[in-house]
Amino acid sequence: MSTGSATAVVITPDQLLEYWLGHRRLTRRVIEAFPEDQLFTFSIGGMRTFAQLAMELLASGAPLLRELVTGESAALKEPEVTSKEELLRRWDESMAEIGDLWKQIPAGRFQETHTAFGVYPGPVYDLVLYAIDNEVHHRGQGYVYLRALGIEPPPFWER
Amino acid sequence: MSTGSATAVVITPDQLLEYWLGHRRLTRRVIEAFPEDQLFTFSIGGMRTFAQLAMELLASGAPLLRELVTGESAALKEPEVTSKEELLRRWDESMAEIGDLWKQIPAGRFQETHTAFGVYPGPVYDLVLYAIDNEVHHRGQGYVYLRALGIEPPPFWER
Repeated sequence: MSTGSATAVVITPDQLLEYWLGHRRLTRRVIEAFPEDQLFTFSIGGMRTFAQLAMELLASGAPLLRELVTGESAALKEPEVTSKEELLRRWDESMAEIGDLWKQIPAGRFQETHTAFGVYPGPVYDLVLYAIDNEVHHRGQGYVYLRALGIEPPPFWER
Repeated sequence: MSTGSATAVVITPDQLLEYWLGHRRLTRRVIEAFPEDQLFTFSIGGMRTFAQLAMELLASGAPLLRELVTGESAALKEPEVTSKEELLRRWDESMAEIGDLWKQIPAGRFQETHTAFGVYPGPVYDLVLYAIDNEVHHRGQGYVYLRALGIEPPPFWER
């Protein structure tokens, strides 16, 4: 194994899973921080509510990993969730699924290519990082919603 | 080299650099999208302006890599920038620095530990990912500012 920087280990699959789950835990705390009504109604500048953003994150998390495990693609389909309790329950189920599916991703899969949801082609590592950064992006928007509502968001660095 | 998932290559250093620079390019487009006055004055819920957030990102990007290359720590120090033109110029300089410093990071460094800015200890891969996700987080906030100002932000998926 070369010691050159081109082949140095940046991050292992286990470490990347833990990194993602840390973000999922933080996003869960952001969902929890919203009052039930504002979660489904509050928005700024015509944007989606935080519940709608969280439903997108449910649709693009575990389902992406299922594609990476099975090799099959399916259209992205967001769940319809109407209460905070149900959203949190689904969030927990989704986190458990992410943990289970991750361990089934074949070795070497991250450097292969895949077309996510039948329409987004790319290297697998990039598709996974996109799922994570899309979560961070939308959660950052949730932080602004909370601040606008006068609510202190959870600390960003606690994962 | 084992083919087990514990040692499978997730992402190479070159790929992670390109991933980060893609985010830096997108953040640059967000800075550009702000009208000069709003960049330094607009905020929601008592948060920092987008110029202030960008100054934090300047302070925590290239300076972190310099620490990883030299092994020396220094307190995080945000630049004081007073015009959009200067902010964009510094942003470009910082991106070039990130590219230069990245190539000097020793092989294996990502799996070592470091205390960033003298106060944030952790595995190097985690410190680098934190620098990136902190950028995505704050940029997501910038998207809300732009929407609140009636300005269409750049597409999130274009890096």
